[in-house]
Amino acid sequence: MKSFKIALAQFSPHIGDITSNVQKMIEQANEAKKQNAEIIVFPELSTIGYPAEDLLLRPSIAKRTLQAFEQLASVKDIVMVFGFVNNTEDAQRYNSAAVMKDGQVLGVYNKQTLPNYGVFDEQRYFSAGHQHLVFEYLGHKFGVLICEDVWSLDTVQQLAKLNVESILVLNSSPYEVGKPQHRIETLKELSKQLNINLIYTNQVGGQDDLIFDGSSFVINNSGAIAFQAPSFQEGLYVVDYEIENKAYKIIEAAPPLTTMAEIYQSLVMATRDYVQRSGFPGVILGLSGGIDSALTLAIAVDAIGADKVQAVMMPYTYTSQISVEDATEQAKRMGVTFGIAEIHPIVNSFMQTLFPFFGNLPADATEENLQARARGTLLMSLSNKFGNLVLSTGNKSELAVGYCTLYGDMVGGFAVLKDVYKSIVFELAKYRNSISETPVIPERVITRAPSAELRPDQKDQDSLPAYDVLDAILYAYLEEDMSQDDIIAKGFEKEIVEKVIRLVDCNEYKRRQGAIGPRITSRAFNRERRYPIINGWKPGV
Amino acid sequence: MKSFKIALAQFSPHIGDITSNVQKMIEQANEAKKQNAEIIVFPELSTIGYPAEDLLLRPSIAKRTLQAFEQLASVKDIVMVFGFVNNTEDAQRYNSAAVMKDGQVLGVYNKQTLPNYGVFDEQRYFSAGHQHLVFEYLGHKFGVLICEDVWSLDTVQQLAKLNVESILVLNSSPYEVGKPQHRIETLKELSKQLNINLIYTNQVGGQDDLIFDGSSFVINNSGAIAFQAPSFQEGLYVVDYEIENKAYKIIEAAPPLTTMAEIYQSLVMATRDYVQRSGFPGVILGLSGGIDSALTLAIAVDAIGADKVQAVMMPYTYTSQISVEDATEQAKRMGVTFGIAEIHPIVNSFMQTLFPFFGNLPADATEENLQARARGTLLMSLSNKFGNLVLSTGNKSELAVGYCTLYGDMVGGFAVLKDVYKSIVFELAKYRNSISETPVIPERVITRAPSAELRPDQKDQDSLPAYDVLDAILYAYLEEDMSQDDIIAKGFEKEIVEKVIRLVDCNEYKRRQGAIGPRITSRAFNRERRYPIINGWKPGV
Repeated sequence: MKSFKIALAQFSPHIGDITSNVQKMIEQANEAKKQNAEIIVFPELSTIGYPAEDLLLRPSIAKRTLQAFEQLASVKDIVMVFGFVNNTEDAQRYNSAAVMKDGQVLGVYNKQTLPNYGVFDEQRYFSAGHQHLVFEYLGHKFGVLICEDVWSLDTVQQLAKLNVESILVLNSSPYEVGKPQHRIETLKELSKQLNINLIYTNQVGGQDDLIFDGSSFVINNSGAIAFQAPSFQEGLYVVDYEIENKAYKIIEAAPPLTTMAEIYQSLVMATRDYVQRSGFPGVILGLSGGIDSALTLAIAVDAIGADKVQAVMMPYTYTSQISVEDATEQAKRMGVTFGIAEIHPIVNSFMQTLFPFFGNLPADATEENLQARARGTLLMSLSNKFGNLVLSTGNKSELAVGYCTLYGDMVGGFAVLKDVYKSIVFELAKYRNSISETPVIPERVITRAPSAELRPDQKDQDSLPAYDVLDAILYAYLEEDMSQDDIIAKGFEKEIVEKVIRLVDCNEYKRRQGAIGPRITSRAFNRERRYPIINGWKPGV
Repeated sequence: MKSFKIALAQFSPHIGDITSNVQKMIEQANEAKKQNAEIIVFPELSTIGYPAEDLLLRPSIAKRTLQAFEQLASVKDIVMVFGFVNNTEDAQRYNSAAVMKDGQVLGVYNKQTLPNYGVFDEQRYFSAGHQHLVFEYLGHKFGVLICEDVWSLDTVQQLAKLNVESILVLNSSPYEVGKPQHRIETLKELSKQLNINLIYTNQVGGQDDLIFDGSSFVINNSGAIAFQAPSFQEGLYVVDYEIENKAYKIIEAAPPLTTMAEIYQSLVMATRDYVQRSGFPGVILGLSGGIDSALTLAIAVDAIGADKVQAVMMPYTYTSQISVEDATEQAKRMGVTFGIAEIHPIVNSFMQTLFPFFGNLPADATEENLQARARGTLLMSLSNKFGNLVLSTGNKSELAVGYCTLYGDMVGGFAVLKDVYKSIVFELAKYRNSISETPVIPERVITRAPSAELRPDQKDQDSLPAYDVLDAILYAYLEEDMSQDDIIAKGFEKEIVEKVIRLVDCNEYKRRQGAIGPRITSRAFNRERRYPIINGWKPGV
C-alpha cells in the first residue's frame, strides 16, 4: 500500500433531526467509499447537529442515539469517525466522537475541553472527558480531538506524546470575520511545533444566529497546508496520505476570499438555511430606497432566488421621490415581485383615533414610530396572508443605539444585517455591485446620505455621529469591552461617546425583542452578549 | 455574655450599581448595630446583585470591587459577611463572601458549587473554590457557604466536620411556587442530620425575569425553625443566640402564605421592581374585558398605585358589549385612568391599503392579527407620547401554543402573566377579589367563557382544548420534560397532545420576540428554556 485516503465530510446537519442527519451521513460514507476513502471524518456532534441546546436534555436522547448507531451499523468497509451525544451508565452526558467500522465501535472519545464562554454553553450540557483516544489503522496512528480541545495546548501536547501521527479533529466552530484564516494560521504553527498532521472537519450551515463556515482543512506536520475546503458550502473532500512521503498530498487551494466576499457569502448561506429550514416558501421585505433594505434584498435574492422574494415600498409624506424611484429600479433589476402601498390613510386613521388622547401635543418620536409600525403591520399582514417570512433590514449600528422602531422596522423573523455595522453595509453593497455586470443596487442608494425619512429632511446624522465614528465607538465598547473613559482617551469626543454608550445600554430591552440574525463579528447581539435589562452599571471606568 | 445577635439583611440590590448597593449595605449595618447585632449577613453577591450576567466580565469589575471594600471599611464594631466578585491575582474570578470587621478582611470564602443549569450560568463567569472558611467569634465557630453549596451534601458535610456550630449561608435563590417552603423543609432535615445551625439570608426583589423571594430563615441544629422572614419584602431581621441553650431563640413566624397569595405577591413585587428600576413613571395596558388583562390591571395597581396606571379599551366589531361594560366597570373600581379607542377606522384603512394585494381572498388569521396589531400600535403610541411602560397581558398557556399575536397583544416591556398558566389566572383573579371588600374584578369577567373576540362568536375553546386539559399537557411537556408518547399514555387524547406539542415547538420564534416576564414555575419561557428555533426534533419518544 502506497497511500490511503481520508474523506472530510463538511456536513450541514438539520439540528435535532437525528434520523435525517444519520441518513445523510450514510450517503456520504457510501460516496466516500466510491472515492476509495478508508476513513470518513464528520463534524462535532454530527448526529444531532450543533448547537442542539436544550434538546440535549430531552430524556429520549439516549434512545435516539442508540437508533442512530443501529442505522450507522449498516455501513461497511469504511471507518466512520463521527460526533454524538454520549449518555453513559453513570448518568453522565459527554460530547463525544465514535470510531466505527462495520457496525463495531472501535473507540469512543469524550471531549475534554468544554467551552462555556461567548456563544458556548457546553458545561450546561456535558461533563468533561479525561482520557485520550488513539487508534491504529492502515499502519498509521490516529488521535481524535473535538473542536475546543485543539485550542488547549495542554490537551494537544498530551495526545502528541502518545506518538500519534495524525489527529482527526471534529469541529462545529462558528464563523466570524477572518476566522477561517485565523484557524488555519494558528493550527499550522501547532502542527509544526508538535510534528503532527491535522485533519480538521468543520460543520457548515446556518443555525439560528450562528453561521458555521466549513472551511475544513488538512495540515501536514511540516506546517504545509495540504488541503483547504471552500467555505459556506457542503462537500465531501478526499485527501490522500502518501506513505512514502509521510505527508498528505498537497492539493492547491483556491485563493482565499476577500473579506467582503467572505461576509457576503456567509450572509447568503445563513439566510438560505434559515428560510429553507423554517419551511417558508419565500420572503418579503420592505424596500425603502435606502441601503440597508437594498442590500438585504440582494442577499435574499442570491440566497433563494428572485421568484421567492417579494418587496414592498411603503411611502409616506417624508419619503422622497428618489427613494421610490430607486426602490422600483432595484426591484426591477433583481426581478422580484414588487408593490407599492401608501401609508397615509393608515397613519391618518391612527392619528384621528389618538387625537382625544394627544390633543394638540407637539409631534415627537411617537409620530415617527407610528409610520414604522404601520409599515411593520402591513408587512406582517402580507406575510400572514401569503406565508412568506418577513426579513428585517436593520443593521448593527442602528440596533446598538436603538435607532429603529420596535414592532416597526424591527418586525420580522430573521434580521439579515443584525451583526453588520453600517460602514460594512456600504462595503457589502459595493462588493455586490462589483460581481455582476449590471450593478443590482442603484448607485444613488449607495452615495446619498442615509435617512430614515420619518420627518422632513431628516438625515441619520442629525441624531447620530457620522457612521465611521459611531462604528468605531461601538466596536471599542461592544467587541473590545473598553470602558467609556478609555474610549474617550482614544480621542473621541466626550459627549459623543457618552451618548453612544448611554444609548447602547438603555436599548437592551429593544434588542431583546428583535429577530435573531446571523453572527459575523466577535460579539453579536444574540446569545453571547448577556446583559441585564434592569441594569444600574455606570459606564465610566 | 449570655447571648449574641446576628442580623439577616434581606436585601434588594440594584443590579450592577455597586456604589448604591454598598451605600445601602452600610445603612443596614448601622441599623443592625443599633439593634445590638454583632454580625450582619448579606445575600450572595450583595455588592453587585444577582445575576449581573456579562457585567461580571467588564474589565473594571476589580477596580469597582476595591472601591466597594474601601466604602465598607468605614463601618466599625460589627462583623459584616457579604457577597462580592473576587478577581484574584492569578486571573481567576470567584463568587465569594468576605468576613470584614473594622475595615479588616478576616476571611474570604470562594463558592465551591457553581450551578450551571436551569436559570444559572455561573460557570460562564466563575471558577470554583476548593477551600472552606471557618472563623471563631464570640466563642462560637462559624462556617460560610454560598447558595448552591448548601445543596451539595458533600460540601456541607466537609464543613460540618470542622466542628462548625453555625453556618452563615449567603443566597440569591430564585423563587418558584412553593420554593420558600421547600427550602426550609429540606434544610431542616440537613440541620438535624449534621447537628448544625443554619443562618440563611436570601436576596429579595425582581430582576428582569427572575424573582427573589427573600424568605430568609434560621434553623437550629435540633431542626427547629428559629426564625422565618416574610417573603417579597426587604427587611433587616435580628436573631438572638442564647449561649446557655446553645440555640437561636425561637421567634414565632406568621402562618405561611397560601399558594395564591404567594404567587400574587411575587407578581406584584416583580412588576413594581421592574417599573421602578427601569425608570418609567407608570404603566399602560389594554383592557379587553377578559380575565388576563383584568388580573394584570389589578397587579399593576397593587404594585405601583392606581394613579400611575392607565387602561385603554380598544373595541372592534367583534367586541361584545359586556366586554366594554366590564372593562369600564373594573377601571372605575380600581380608580385608574381609563379611555376607549375604537379601532374600526384603523383596521379599515389597513384593509383598504391591502386590497390591491389581497383582492377577494377569504379572511383568515391575517384579519384577526390586524386587529391585535392596531391595538398594539395604539398602546405603543400612547406609551411613546406619555412615557408609560406597556404591560403585556398574555398568559403562559397562550404563549406556549402561540395563541397570541406577535407585535399585537404581545407588545410591551414586561409580561406580567408570562409564566402563569390560564387555570392559575382564574385562581389568582378569585384570590384578588377575596382580599378586598369590593371585588376589584367584576364577577362576570371570571365566569364567562374566555374569548379573544377576534371573529364573530369566537371562543378560545374553538381552537384550543379546555384550559385544564391544555395546562396539564403543557405542564407535562414543559416542566416534566415528558415525551409526546408518554403524555398520550397518561390518558390524554392523541390528536390533542400532538397538536399542543406541535404548537409549542413551532412557536419558539414568537416567544423569542416576546417581552420578559416574571418566573414563577420550574420552567419559564425565559433564560432557562433554550430551544433552537430551527429545530428538526420529532417529539414522539
